[in-house]
Amino acid sequence: MPEIPVFSHDAVLSAVSPEEAIERVRHAFVEYASGEWTMPPKVYLDAYPAGDFRAMPAKGAGVAILKWVTSFPGNAGSGLPVVMGVICVSSASDGEPLALIDARAITALRTGAVSAVAAQELGPEDARSVGIVGCGFNGAWAARCLAAAEFGPGVCFDRDAEAAGLLAGELGWEAGSREDALACDVVTCVTPGHEPVVRAADLHPRMHLNMLGADGPGKAEADVEAVTQCRLFCDEWAQAAHGGELTGAVEAAAITRQQVTDLGAVLTGAAPGRAKAEEITLFDSTGLAIQDLALSIAVLEAHRAGTVKAQLVRL
Amino acid sequence: MPEIPVFSHDAVLSAVSPEEAIERVRHAFVEYASGEWTMPPKVYLDAYPAGDFRAMPAKGAGVAILKWVTSFPGNAGSGLPVVMGVICVSSASDGEPLALIDARAITALRTGAVSAVAAQELGPEDARSVGIVGCGFNGAWAARCLAAAEFGPGVCFDRDAEAAGLLAGELGWEAGSREDALACDVVTCVTPGHEPVVRAADLHPRMHLNMLGADGPGKAEADVEAVTQCRLFCDEWAQAAHGGELTGAVEAAAITRQQVTDLGAVLTGAAPGRAKAEEITLFDSTGLAIQDLALSIAVLEAHRAGTVKAQLVRL
Repeated sequence: MPEIPVFSHDAVLSAVSPEEAIERVRHAFVEYASGEWTMPPKVYLDAYPAGDFRAMPAKGAGVAILKWVTSFPGNAGSGLPVVMGVICVSSASDGEPLALIDARAITALRTGAVSAVAAQELGPEDARSVGIVGCGFNGAWAARCLAAAEFGPGVCFDRDAEAAGLLAGELGWEAGSREDALACDVVTCVTPGHEPVVRAADLHPRMHLNMLGADGPGKAEADVEAVTQCRLFCDEWAQAAHGGELTGAVEAAAITRQQVTDLGAVLTGAAPGRAKAEEITLFDSTGLAIQDLALSIAVLEAHRAGTVKAQLVRL
Repeated sequence: MPEIPVFSHDAVLSAVSPEEAIERVRHAFVEYASGEWTMPPKVYLDAYPAGDFRAMPAKGAGVAILKWVTSFPGNAGSGLPVVMGVICVSSASDGEPLALIDARAITALRTGAVSAVAAQELGPEDARSVGIVGCGFNGAWAARCLAAAEFGPGVCFDRDAEAAGLLAGELGWEAGSREDALACDVVTCVTPGHEPVVRAADLHPRMHLNMLGADGPGKAEADVEAVTQCRLFCDEWAQAAHGGELTGAVEAAAITRQQVTDLGAVLTGAAPGRAKAEEITLFDSTGLAIQDLALSIAVLEAHRAGTVKAQLVRL
């Protein structure tokens, strides 16, 4: 077999800017909603209580990918990342391996990018201020993507005040309390989801909420009462209803499928987005393999254009 | 992230001998049947009509793997392998990536190895002669594993007489007709499964059949009449009943779950194997991720022992 390129964490982040990630992820949702790109359901391999692995396949634009990625929340204490893994990129026409890409960098960038797309599409027209609740690796990339989409300045909150301060300093934003962050126009939550960080009393008119953290059964960043007061959007119903931010409300029979709109339907014009400036919108991001596919393609194109360095290996 | 080893096709085949592969795969079936190793169902990503991709996760012995592997039958004409891909190996305790391994070599070796295990366990006690029907890459490795398990000499048959002749020459066996191959004690079929190569008239007492080729809906190497005349075994019922050699007979309601025994149950003593020397046994191998896991662990151990060279990359 010929040599194939391997792209490290740093190579990915140097190859794809937040601005480009936003456009690529927007395109992915349109292609998926149009039926051009496909994505079987992700598969979980549990390694409880420490964590789990997810296998996430997707296909589009002549490329097929599989993301093999972890969530080991306890790693935060040991210095190892919570999210680690590899994206295998193959030709969809003959199956030939094309590249291997660090999954951690792609995950952070595509999760951050979708929060900017959702804020652009679902937030009130003149939304500017950004609240970040949870300033870990993925929270920081959400903030960078929102800044790249010309949102801000913002307020960064994290239980770890140093993490909040560092991120605020990088972007010229401020560190503040949870309440300060929640008072902003666009609030992006990226916490582990073990306990709600948004309650009904925290809601205010014109707010747009991006919920990026809760990614499995039993996890939630907003309580059911808060969820039911919002106009609801998600990346994909099947994932959001069973292992996302909306799961609690679905299980409590407080919301139905009919009340939740897919982001892709809004982007293609098949469904309306925000109806009134005053209403509160909530976007549940569970993370889709089509987003990983979009950024994997971006990395391959950057490599072909000679703007990113790769290591080479032979299978 | 630290550098991780990448094992090429040639490195895998130099690291794990057929003898070792047989013992490792036998162990995998015992561990899985005992509930020690786990394996969620494999996921297909279709790229029809050219082929498909499979994502195959498994966990055991502190290791979690994901095999991302193709079946593009049309590649045979273009010189590209039908089966290609990567195995991602991670620590099951913290999710850290440990290695990347060529999937093609592992697939050939573990598929060959299980045919030797099944022949040892299910064939008549004094079985010796081997018929190989289909002498492609995977057929050749099945022959090598059967030879390593001291079966043979054998008869190699392939529509491509050169492929049959090369394999026979390598092992000191003979090339012959389909009928010659089917007259042997242990018959191993590794064809694409587009049309049956074993019909009821081909069966003879004391025969053991390994059916390795049919790996998806609509494919079969034996016709339903032949299948129903055999005592039946499989690697896993769910896969064999829906995309394996037994699927046609299940769909025709010619066999039921009760008539088919899992190989792992035979290996652990939970179920009987061959009951009479005269009967005909058929083993349907659909290919399990636990087999890939077993050989991935063998490669890691060979690397730790310094007996195989790896390339190094940083994610």
